[in-house]
Amino acid sequence: MCDTCGCHSPSDPLIVEVNQSLLAANDEAAHANHHRIEAMGAVGLNLISSPGSGKTTLLEKTIEMLGRDLRIGVIEGDIETELDAERIRAKGVPVVQLTTGGACHLDAPLVGKGLDALEGQLDGAGLDLVVIENVGNLVCPATFALGEHQRVVLLSVPEGQDKPAKYPGVFRTSQIFLLTKTDLLPYFDFDIAAASAEARRINPALQIMALSATSGEGMEAWFDFLRQITK
Amino acid sequence: MCDTCGCHSPSDPLIVEVNQSLLAANDEAAHANHHRIEAMGAVGLNLISSPGSGKTTLLEKTIEMLGRDLRIGVIEGDIETELDAERIRAKGVPVVQLTTGGACHLDAPLVGKGLDALEGQLDGAGLDLVVIENVGNLVCPATFALGEHQRVVLLSVPEGQDKPAKYPGVFRTSQIFLLTKTDLLPYFDFDIAAASAEARRINPALQIMALSATSGEGMEAWFDFLRQITK
Repeated sequence: MCDTCGCHSPSDPLIVEVNQSLLAANDEAAHANHHRIEAMGAVGLNLISSPGSGKTTLLEKTIEMLGRDLRIGVIEGDIETELDAERIRAKGVPVVQLTTGGACHLDAPLVGKGLDALEGQLDGAGLDLVVIENVGNLVCPATFALGEHQRVVLLSVPEGQDKPAKYPGVFRTSQIFLLTKTDLLPYFDFDIAAASAEARRINPALQIMALSATSGEGMEAWFDFLRQITK
Repeated sequence: MCDTCGCHSPSDPLIVEVNQSLLAANDEAAHANHHRIEAMGAVGLNLISSPGSGKTTLLEKTIEMLGRDLRIGVIEGDIETELDAERIRAKGVPVVQLTTGGACHLDAPLVGKGLDALEGQLDGAGLDLVVIENVGNLVCPATFALGEHQRVVLLSVPEGQDKPAKYPGVFRTSQIFLLTKTDLLPYFDFDIAAASAEARRINPALQIMALSATSGEGMEAWFDFLRQITK
């Protein structure tokens, strides 16, 4: 089992065994999701970050910019509320809200139900990109594959540059690191080079982009990346 | 079991049973911690928030202001690194770093070991205040009592005002809600009244303070609160 799993109690070894069977079942469902996303003609992303790092705003701007060229479908994960799905629905793309009812992360069986609901909105048409926005949590989602092709971790400037060192699990298991809200750099003691170096120490293969969905700075590289993986 | 526990997979009922016995053991250990904190002569706080909401900075400023009048001891919880304990140690108070080795929250047995280590630094002297800084996570720590007298949830302005509605568990189980980084209000579309109203809808008894550890705004109310509970 991945030792970055937050979903067991640190003092109780008993639960490790249960988690092992849980994760094996999750991996199997993730594998099935992966093939379903490919059968739609799409590439899947799993967005992971703390609450309020800018996942939904990034997604809104991405749909505004690329929504005419790419067919984008979204699965929103939250503990409660439909707030995020409403924001995405307003942008005119197919969206499904999953609520975990308390749980701290999405898992692959639940995302499988999300794919059912997404397919129901498509009338047989395909997609180019399926974006799964995970529950706001920098720890537990790192342990649960959902069937994505690429995992994207977001860290916003206000959270502080020490976060890759303090929460290494999600940086270790992601392919893309988006450093968000760079428009706020003037107001924070945040060193992009230091945060990037720390993240690369944990995961040398990590692709890093710094951007601001508000000012637009750095967004072109993100759009290019999406165009490339959906070609 | 508290249904806000993030520490089980949303699709697997099997793990609920294991968690029930886990939480019963945790509550027992929390009860013991509670009495140990009182035996030190102290009141215990459990600080919970997302990564980067300003828990450690608040604690630094609190020690600077009250450290001469109150004997403060700190237990730092992190997944990895001693970074936070080093920051607190520099302020000259007894501090213990707990690292969970991957897990997403502190639990009471681990905090019990933290109290052992804290007592070892005191040479028999007492404390007025024991502050436990939890792992940065707005979900899972809400389920685990640590033996605290008051639970304090922090939400920073950059995280967005929709967070009480989206992460209700921790607002339901806390006594104090600190709205932090108010110096950043000019740069964000954040409505303090709306965030407070939403939090009070979830928990009408919640005591709410808005403050900035950077500008000092609102800090006096927090210091007064600490002076009062340690009288």
